[in-house]
Amino acid sequence: MTGDHRVPEGQLAQYALRVGDDALIAAQRLAEWSARAPEMEEDIALSNIALDQLGVARFLLSLAGGADGRSEDDLAYLRDDAEFRNCLLAEVPNGGPTAPPGASGDFGVTMVKLLLLGAYQLCLYERLVDSSEASLAEVAGKARKESRYHVDHAAQWTVRLGDGTATSQARVQQALDDLWPYTHELFEDDPLAVWAAEAGVGPLPSSLRAAWDAIVLPVLEEATLTVPPAGWHPTGGRDGRHTEHLSYLLAELQVLHRAHPGASW
Amino acid sequence: MTGDHRVPEGQLAQYALRVGDDALIAAQRLAEWSARAPEMEEDIALSNIALDQLGVARFLLSLAGGADGRSEDDLAYLRDDAEFRNCLLAEVPNGGPTAPPGASGDFGVTMVKLLLLGAYQLCLYERLVDSSEASLAEVAGKARKESRYHVDHAAQWTVRLGDGTATSQARVQQALDDLWPYTHELFEDDPLAVWAAEAGVGPLPSSLRAAWDAIVLPVLEEATLTVPPAGWHPTGGRDGRHTEHLSYLLAELQVLHRAHPGASW
Repeated sequence: MTGDHRVPEGQLAQYALRVGDDALIAAQRLAEWSARAPEMEEDIALSNIALDQLGVARFLLSLAGGADGRSEDDLAYLRDDAEFRNCLLAEVPNGGPTAPPGASGDFGVTMVKLLLLGAYQLCLYERLVDSSEASLAEVAGKARKESRYHVDHAAQWTVRLGDGTATSQARVQQALDDLWPYTHELFEDDPLAVWAAEAGVGPLPSSLRAAWDAIVLPVLEEATLTVPPAGWHPTGGRDGRHTEHLSYLLAELQVLHRAHPGASW
Repeated sequence: MTGDHRVPEGQLAQYALRVGDDALIAAQRLAEWSARAPEMEEDIALSNIALDQLGVARFLLSLAGGADGRSEDDLAYLRDDAEFRNCLLAEVPNGGPTAPPGASGDFGVTMVKLLLLGAYQLCLYERLVDSSEASLAEVAGKARKESRYHVDHAAQWTVRLGDGTATSQARVQQALDDLWPYTHELFEDDPLAVWAAEAGVGPLPSSLRAAWDAIVLPVLEEATLTVPPAGWHPTGGRDGRHTEHLSYLLAELQVLHRAHPGASW
């Protein structure tokens, strides 16, 4: 077994890991819908979006691990939860932030989350195409096209559910209320983000907010949803302080690889 | 709710359903690996193969349902197990034919099964491109290209595992021993198949055997695997007589749709 599960050293590697972990954890949550979606067409759509996210994650984890000779698999399968750098929003269960482990998914939660997280990823990738790091600019150029589709898909469902029946409206409003506090973390200018901005590697997170608002707020309005008031702001994902939900997610993601470390199957 | 879960009437619809159910159930089994595969690259490969199978299934179920106004979703989500027409091989659990419900998947079983079933699908699609039914010929033209990739992928893994360590060889030989009896059913000339052959709709199943042998046997030889002797031949899937494994599979596939019949989510 060649795996090494420390967080990569070097600021660029840590930055790539942060962006890549968002995509990896988002992919895992979307894949939980695989063969469980309410329609065959939606099953295919969610699976394809998960594959897009996984593709971006692989590229970025390879980049992060390359500095000290670790593979994408080492980083995906051998890190503990405190070593993941994804935002908390990505790890929220499909049943919502307060769902018990194993609870079935809520389609409204999934779509609102994809809208909120996907819009953030889209705004970030749109800026990363100008990164001083050619490899980041390269993956962002491909990923932003995929992200546009993810956001469009989530927006259509959010409007369909929000501007739907009274029941669907109430459920999707509840999903928005539950998820909204987690969006604050996306725009925090922590030291690594400040380093990235000064080095021309990536944008200041706070500078993405206006573009994100311009995408998200019109969708919520068309969906007849009310933006929740400012309040509780959970944070810590970028420093490895995660919710207990990530532990369950990683248990499922990592069990097979850890049971057969270094094996080819 | 407009759903109607009877088996479609008409021989062409039944024929399309038979081919489509193979793909649908294969897709469901492959999707069970989603976000659980031993490597990120393999996770993406299995998910893509599942999506290919689901795409073919959607087309054929739409074709089967079209005759009497039912949708692909009606046929996928509202039929009971006795109304499915897939071969038994497709429904074998990823853990093998004797795995208890909920058992974790065996990668060797999955790859050998994909080799055996995928080679059958490839041989069938290669013939269906000449079907007197234009819609069947059309989907077969696309599906055969995808099937070639599925078979190549499964063949590479079968050889890697079979011609690998003593442990991996023994496990994949066991998988072959367990799955081989289920291949007999693929080549049975039952009355519907005879009708299809006489009408120019599709090939006689028995006529596919030589082409299937030509694909499968060299792979098994390269993998240092021994073809099991002829023996027990389970059958009945084409008539709706399934193993209990299909009931568990359908419970997972159908729960969300049945809980919210006709709903948009």
